[in-house]
Amino acid sequence: MAKKSPEPQSADLGFAHVDLHRVKRVGFPEVIFGEGKSKEQIAAIAERIILAKQPLLITRVEPEVYAYLRSRIEGLQHNEKARCIYLEKTEKHSSKQGNKKSSSSKTKKQGLVLVLTGGTTDIPVAEEAALTARMMGCQVKTLYDVGVAGLHRLISHSEELRKAAVIIVVAGMEGALPSVVGGLVACPIIAVPTSVGYGSAFGGLAPLLAMLNSCAPGVTVVNINNGFGAGYAAGRIM
Amino acid sequence: MAKKSPEPQSADLGFAHVDLHRVKRVGFPEVIFGEGKSKEQIAAIAERIILAKQPLLITRVEPEVYAYLRSRIEGLQHNEKARCIYLEKTEKHSSKQGNKKSSSSKTKKQGLVLVLTGGTTDIPVAEEAALTARMMGCQVKTLYDVGVAGLHRLISHSEELRKAAVIIVVAGMEGALPSVVGGLVACPIIAVPTSVGYGSAFGGLAPLLAMLNSCAPGVTVVNINNGFGAGYAAGRIM
Amino acid sequence: MAKKSPEPQSADLGFAHVDLHRVKRVGFPEVIFGEGKSKEQIAAIAERIILAKQPLLITRVEPEVYAYLRSRIEGLQHNEKARCIYLEKTEKHSSKQGNKKSSSSKTKKQGLVLVLTGGTTDIPVAEEAALTARMMGCQVKTLYDVGVAGLHRLISHSEELRKAAVIIVVAGMEGALPSVVGGLVACPIIAVPTSVGYGSAFGGLAPLLAMLNSCAPGVTVVNINNGFGAGYAAGRIM
Amino acid sequence: MAKKSPEPQSADLGFAHVDLHRVKRVGFPEVIFGEGKSKEQIAAIAERIILAKQPLLITRVEPEVYAYLRSRIEGLQHNEKARCIYLEKTEKHSSKQGNKKSSSSKTKKQGLVLVLTGGTTDIPVAEEAALTARMMGCQVKTLYDVGVAGLHRLISHSEELRKAAVIIVVAGMEGALPSVVGGLVACPIIAVPTSVGYGSAFGGLAPLLAMLNSCAPGVTVVNINNGFGAGYAAGRIM
Amino acid sequence: MAKKSPEPQSADLGFAHVDLHRVKRVGFPEVIFGEGKSKEQIAAIAERIILAKQPLLITRVEPEVYAYLRSRIEGLQHNEKARCIYLEKTEKHSSKQGNKKSSSSKTKKQGLVLVLTGGTTDIPVAEEAALTARMMGCQVKTLYDVGVAGLHRLISHSEELRKAAVIIVVAGMEGALPSVVGGLVACPIIAVPTSVGYGSAFGGLAPLLAMLNSCAPGVTVVNINNGFGAGYAAGRIM
Amino acid sequence: MAKKSPEPQSADLGFAHVDLHRVKRVGFPEVIFGEGKSKEQIAAIAERIILAKQPLLITRVEPEVYAYLRSRIEGLQHNEKARCIYLEKTEKHSSKQGNKKSSSSKTKKQGLVLVLTGGTTDIPVAEEAALTARMMGCQVKTLYDVGVAGLHRLISHSEELRKAAVIIVVAGMEGALPSVVGGLVACPIIAVPTSVGYGSAFGGLAPLLAMLNSCAPGVTVVNINNGFGAGYAAGRIM
Amino acid sequence: MAKKSPEPQSADLGFAHVDLHRVKRVGFPEVIFGEGKSKEQIAAIAERIILAKQPLLITRVEPEVYAYLRSRIEGLQHNEKARCIYLEKTEKHSSKQGNKKSSSSKTKKQGLVLVLTGGTTDIPVAEEAALTARMMGCQVKTLYDVGVAGLHRLISHSEELRKAAVIIVVAGMEGALPSVVGGLVACPIIAVPTSVGYGSAFGGLAPLLAMLNSCAPGVTVVNINNGFGAGYAAGRIM
Amino acid sequence: MAKKSPEPQSADLGFAHVDLHRVKRVGFPEVIFGEGKSKEQIAAIAERIILAKQPLLITRVEPEVYAYLRSRIEGLQHNEKARCIYLEKTEKHSSKQGNKKSSSSKTKKQGLVLVLTGGTTDIPVAEEAALTARMMGCQVKTLYDVGVAGLHRLISHSEELRKAAVIIVVAGMEGALPSVVGGLVACPIIAVPTSVGYGSAFGGLAPLLAMLNSCAPGVTVVNINNGFGAGYAAGRIM
Repeated sequence: MAKKSPEPQSADLGFAHVDLHRVKRVGFPEVIFGEGKSKEQIAAIAERIILAKQPLLITRVEPEVYAYLRSRIEGLQHNEKARCIYLEKTEKHSSKQGNKKSSSSKTKKQGLVLVLTGGTTDIPVAEEAALTARMMGCQVKTLYDVGVAGLHRLISHSEELRKAAVIIVVAGMEGALPSVVGGLVACPIIAVPTSVGYGSAFGGLAPLLAMLNSCAPGVTVVNINNGFGAGYAAGRIM
Repeated sequence: MAKKSPEPQSADLGFAHVDLHRVKRVGFPEVIFGEGKSKEQIAAIAERIILAKQPLLITRVEPEVYAYLRSRIEGLQHNEKARCIYLEKTEKHSSKQGNKKSSSSKTKKQGLVLVLTGGTTDIPVAEEAALTARMMGCQVKTLYDVGVAGLHRLISHSEELRKAAVIIVVAGMEGALPSVVGGLVACPIIAVPTSVGYGSAFGGLAPLLAMLNSCAPGVTVVNINNGFGAGYAAGRIM
Repeated sequence: MAKKSPEPQSADLGFAHVDLHRVKRVGFPEVIFGEGKSKEQIAAIAERIILAKQPLLITRVEPEVYAYLRSRIEGLQHNEKARCIYLEKTEKHSSKQGNKKSSSSKTKKQGLVLVLTGGTTDIPVAEEAALTARMMGCQVKTLYDVGVAGLHRLISHSEELRKAAVIIVVAGMEGALPSVVGGLVACPIIAVPTSVGYGSAFGGLAPLLAMLNSCAPGVTVVNINNGFGAGYAAGRIM
Repeated sequence: MAKKSPEPQSADLGFAHVDLHRVKRVGFPEVIFGEGKSKEQIAAIAERIILAKQPLLITRVEPEVYAYLRSRIEGLQHNEKARCIYLEKTEKHSSKQGNKKSSSSKTKKQGLVLVLTGGTTDIPVAEEAALTARMMGCQVKTLYDVGVAGLHRLISHSEELRKAAVIIVVAGMEGALPSVVGGLVACPIIAVPTSVGYGSAFGGLAPLLAMLNSCAPGVTVVNINNGFGAGYAAGRIM
Repeated sequence: MAKKSPEPQSADLGFAHVDLHRVKRVGFPEVIFGEGKSKEQIAAIAERIILAKQPLLITRVEPEVYAYLRSRIEGLQHNEKARCIYLEKTEKHSSKQGNKKSSSSKTKKQGLVLVLTGGTTDIPVAEEAALTARMMGCQVKTLYDVGVAGLHRLISHSEELRKAAVIIVVAGMEGALPSVVGGLVACPIIAVPTSVGYGSAFGGLAPLLAMLNSCAPGVTVVNINNGFGAGYAAGRIM
Repeated sequence: MAKKSPEPQSADLGFAHVDLHRVKRVGFPEVIFGEGKSKEQIAAIAERIILAKQPLLITRVEPEVYAYLRSRIEGLQHNEKARCIYLEKTEKHSSKQGNKKSSSSKTKKQGLVLVLTGGTTDIPVAEEAALTARMMGCQVKTLYDVGVAGLHRLISHSEELRKAAVIIVVAGMEGALPSVVGGLVACPIIAVPTSVGYGSAFGGLAPLLAMLNSCAPGVTVVNINNGFGAGYAAGRIM
Repeated sequence: MAKKSPEPQSADLGFAHVDLHRVKRVGFPEVIFGEGKSKEQIAAIAERIILAKQPLLITRVEPEVYAYLRSRIEGLQHNEKARCIYLEKTEKHSSKQGNKKSSSSKTKKQGLVLVLTGGTTDIPVAEEAALTARMMGCQVKTLYDVGVAGLHRLISHSEELRKAAVIIVVAGMEGALPSVVGGLVACPIIAVPTSVGYGSAFGGLAPLLAMLNSCAPGVTVVNINNGFGAGYAAGRIM
Repeated sequence: MAKKSPEPQSADLGFAHVDLHRVKRVGFPEVIFGEGKSKEQIAAIAERIILAKQPLLITRVEPEVYAYLRSRIEGLQHNEKARCIYLEKTEKHSSKQGNKKSSSSKTKKQGLVLVLTGGTTDIPVAEEAALTARMMGCQVKTLYDVGVAGLHRLISHSEELRKAAVIIVVAGMEGALPSVVGGLVACPIIAVPTSVGYGSAFGGLAPLLAMLNSCAPGVTVVNINNGFGAGYAAGRIM
């Protein structure tokens, strides 16, 4: 894994040490978690990643951030439902530094990542997961609003469930969907609890606990609303 | 609600005010919650209920209590799995006071109470529910270990599910079973979380929260391990 | 309730799988939980339900949603206190699809559903419960602000309490009302904790725990502020 | 409460600084909380308090501790239900130091402290409260098992409730009794939650929260099972 | 407190059952908790209380409510820091119903209620307590910002502490002040935790738990920020 | 899903519905969770699985259960550290039913599952994970006590970390190890929090939350002490 | 630090008892916690501290407060990132009272306080810590965004870590950084959890618990986001 | 502290990687946390540490472990109150490996570590802290049972408090003592919450939260009952 390029392992921007070496260690560059960062900070980190010719993914950003960034960086894409900004193939675009070559993965990984949601309100989290998995080179298919209160909606897609290589199940409220799916298929299942619900859902605690206690073995869980983490884990598996 | 009988509304034993009037107000006499009471206290309250010719139900008792009670009171029955002691038809038995007539309900209520469990370990709670519902005059059927990780076990009993007048669903771990059942039938569903599980099940908190947040509408919930309460509520509904 | 029409079991709108089959399985069509859905999503799902000639109920919606919907769908009714939009008899109205026949229940169920609140601030939740029970064909009566700090207010309505077939008790703060009511009547009691209170009420946790631990047996509980669930459960019981 | 004696403010036993001055500051000597202390430590502290001619109260002790102490100290009294050891009038007894004069209050305070419990299992906590209040010179009356599921049991004692100067209400499970009592009387009410209950009672958390959120104003609360604290507060009020 | 008047026990306004009988049972009329009620609801309840010639106290109201109410009701007073509206002597004022005689207590109770705060930010809660106690006829004195990090500030007022008949201690953060005060005086102490603090103060949970676990016996506790309850309890004691 | 074999989908033992079909759906037979089941129940279920010629795995069993089982079933293996009983190749063994052919996987899956622990006390959970993964056909290597307080212990094994196909990280206390490992490798990481720790570790809550909030993306989490689930998930991935 | 002036121990402003004696007892004057105080209150307290010729530090203030204060007090400095206002050398400035001499420490303490953050979003808390430590006379260096997911960023600064006299580690999410640092150096480490994160980070609870359970001994912890407390503790150590 | 010996950085015992390098990095060798380890595991790790001529400290061990260890290792010391086994000067003793030279610190650090407790029951935790600090070369003094309910006990030791270089404050229940001490002295204060208390103390949560929210700045906190951590941190400061 040795490399000749004099690329530094990290770039110190004062407010951030951009981990440029991460792509070599873990297979994907540092991803910018937008929440709580100013748009100027996001822009500076994004430009440094583009300069290093690495794919760019920014999560949890409001539309204003996109408006600001595209005035500084060319070619950005925006998935508003997923609240993500990204730039898959950096060589085609140029920030003010003028990148040349992308380190983005060219070849699609084999097998399908299937993203399910229990309800309509879970979709933004599912979109974040789907986009992330796609950024990591996975083929992704989504299937929304197939919660357990109407099992036939899920069971009518049994074929697709069995064909998937990894299934990401996004659900709020009582978080029962991963257990049901886990009893139907043999592939790895990544459960994402969401903050959809009210009262004793306690911001996603109810589905989080349910998923951690799933009676279907082999279900693993990520943080509440962490679509990114689920998509990333799916990418690691693929 | 005026009554000629000189039966007192309650009997003061010092450590207990036995609510003899309850059977008239709410349709079933006071039930003795055994946990935390001495066997002498239980015996004294039980004898007072028998004296009033009311059916007797004692929940949450260890076998020692039964051994002690049957030496003082004739004709007691013991359901060890349910941890209950009971005496359905008090006229046939005699405590030292020699009762004559039972106030126990003679006619079975119509319709079936179906008691389901997610797993084998939930059975004691289910047995408490089933016994309680039977004591209240309900016909009861049980169906155990039909959790969501193997849906076919549940779905193969669809007919029975649809015929039930009330379904009590007892489940620990992620507590997903009531949601699945709630999406299959039109009758009332009473969900009982159990303390079966470990770690982040937090003594039954996980299934309790899951059941309270069920996406299947019309599911109501009782306390963790409260089989008695579920059976009693089923009796009230019937 | 059998139907000849080749009505599909569910309709896939991309962001939602409308469960058109639910009315046959559980006796009432899918209800739209408005919170977190865009008004366009709500409208599309609502139109699909109307097209299937099923009664429509949308809960947790702000007045803006109603303003938008009535510009697209004729004949909608709005209960602002309950934050619900509904359309009971779909045959009289026409969406752009022009429905013909309602599947709404014609015959009122027998017996009365009584909805109580502990205080004035609990009323919106109680209204949601009352409206839902009415939508399911129940006769409903409400009795507000009869909390336990002034017992005479409750006891002066003893007659009505005893006549009810189901009682829904809505209360925040310490949630004591269901226990008191549970000791007075023989019918099923559904307790609804509300987020009314402050400090250690913890958003409704205090009355939720109180209701789950009620010393009056046979009280069952739904989620915090879940008036809809309580009304729905009452409808199932009736 | 004499002030001339050169009695030190505190006595340092190494493992304890006995606060001998407390009786002068707060009106009652230091009370020994037995839980977690060895019987030798308890004995040494007790002897130091007796030496200072102050009344002795030891709470939360097992019978073994009493067996040990009475072999070292004469005249001790034991209330096993309350799990307390005490010595009200120290002048009549002699430890090895041979005390002469008691600082125990001679004259009974006016007005009655009434101690209620919701159930039978709450009695030990109530006994601790009653004993403590008596030690502080109060007249105390107890009334047990008058919980809200059978209101008539409470209401039949309305006269006694109204005559009380302070009411201590001890209750587990949903902890509703203080709210009901608080709506019936004008005197101060001290609520004591107990750990009686199971599942979502969470060791007394449910009644604690209920009591803190009581809709009956003027109810104040002490720690779970803290009968001592309630009795002491009643003594301060009287 | 006259008893001949044919005054009804409660007045049913639809959204509220005003408990007009409360003043006779518990010594003070119903108090309006303003949070969550509309200004029209508050006005209607207030007018009914005034009509019954009872003192009026409305807590937790924003300035807008006061602006609205004084346009309907004459003579209202507003304590903005305490967020309360009140009308002590109702005979001097006239709502549209024109009251004649106040039931407000004329004679001041003996003894002093002392209200302390740990910090400056706790003052609004303390003001609510002080106003409530005054409304109940108590003499009240306040002493603010005397927290335990600078003990000399408290100890320099030892004389006042010892003279008080009841002390209300209002504190956020770690809530240590009641324990220190409780070790200095013999009178009853009512502790009020506040939501002052951040992070692991968890909205007042930290001081609430601290106060419930106070090592100074006889401290009783009310809900977080419940100045009203503390003032009311002080009034009951006096 | 039609199958010619007359093998039933599940076997109803009264207290258990053994899911014999699971191996076909999810690739591995039902695993017996021993906790809370009687040894007779475990034996009966085990015999039914063996009769179906499926591999047997029983988790969370005390040595007594093993002593009992081996008197009824031949050839059982016991991993005491992992608290598991198993029987990998059922054809070589005979229960009283005399099995003939094993459905256990013959061919080892490619790639290595690496199981790490933060400390010595985490080993039993790690052993459960390792055994489960081996039962599912994985090659497994363990590396214990390489927690973050001595990073060099971990870093000296960098080569092995990078070669692993899946890494299971088992850690209690602050649960930091998965984040550090997640930053070093590109393979999927399954984090298992343990109940090792005390005080504010709250039975494993601290490492559970830490792992769910890992700043190293792609870490997924299972329940506290759930070595089985982690091993199973690793098997699904492989 | 002895002073001859008859400076009072505290100054009573009605809403605040300014603890002027604190500088003598604990080595630094009272610091104004701005949150929840009005700008007028802050100004009055600040002026009283300046009058006493003590250094001034105000934390948790919004820019509006600064705008207001500088119109009343000369020479104030504002660190917007840290949300602090301060005045280090009071003799050079004059409030309306015209101070003469500063009590601010002239001589820098020896040794370096190093402030680390796990991420960019933790910087405001770190700045508060750094400013506080500087106000107390410490030399401070900061190193930001060196979280554990990219260990090389931290390890490349090993030299600086080893030279520090005290290290303050500020981190949100899983809070793993203090454990890693604690295993690398011998100096005292003060860990500051932040509310950076979402979902099961529960407002900083996750890193707080992680830090309290650190396997690296000798790590001590302050409240969530309490940069001030960490800086102050570092100052006490130095 | 550099050493020429080719001592390995860690020793792999299979179940443990003994971190022999730690003494060089952090100034003190690895300490054995006894809880959850078998006595054989403890012995093996202990012998490896002794072989490396490093001081030995084993915490949280029952007397049985000591009985076992002293049969294998010569010269061990046992502090039963602190539940610790230790061996300060390893050169004088010989395990089977026969050590020659101790790496234990010879010269006492300057300044005093003062260990306070709120009550008698907190002493075991305090003893663990004191022993640890002594092992690290500190001079230690203890002062027990000086809780805030009797302030004079603390204030009478003001001189000692002011002379201390570091103060460790160990307290359960409401955990108020560190705040009071923090307002009296200028040195660093390390607060140790204990699980002393009951009910809403929630196993030490109450004092933990209180200490984290201390209004006395500069107080840092360790885990519940973590006397070792406090002593270690004190050693790092000294």
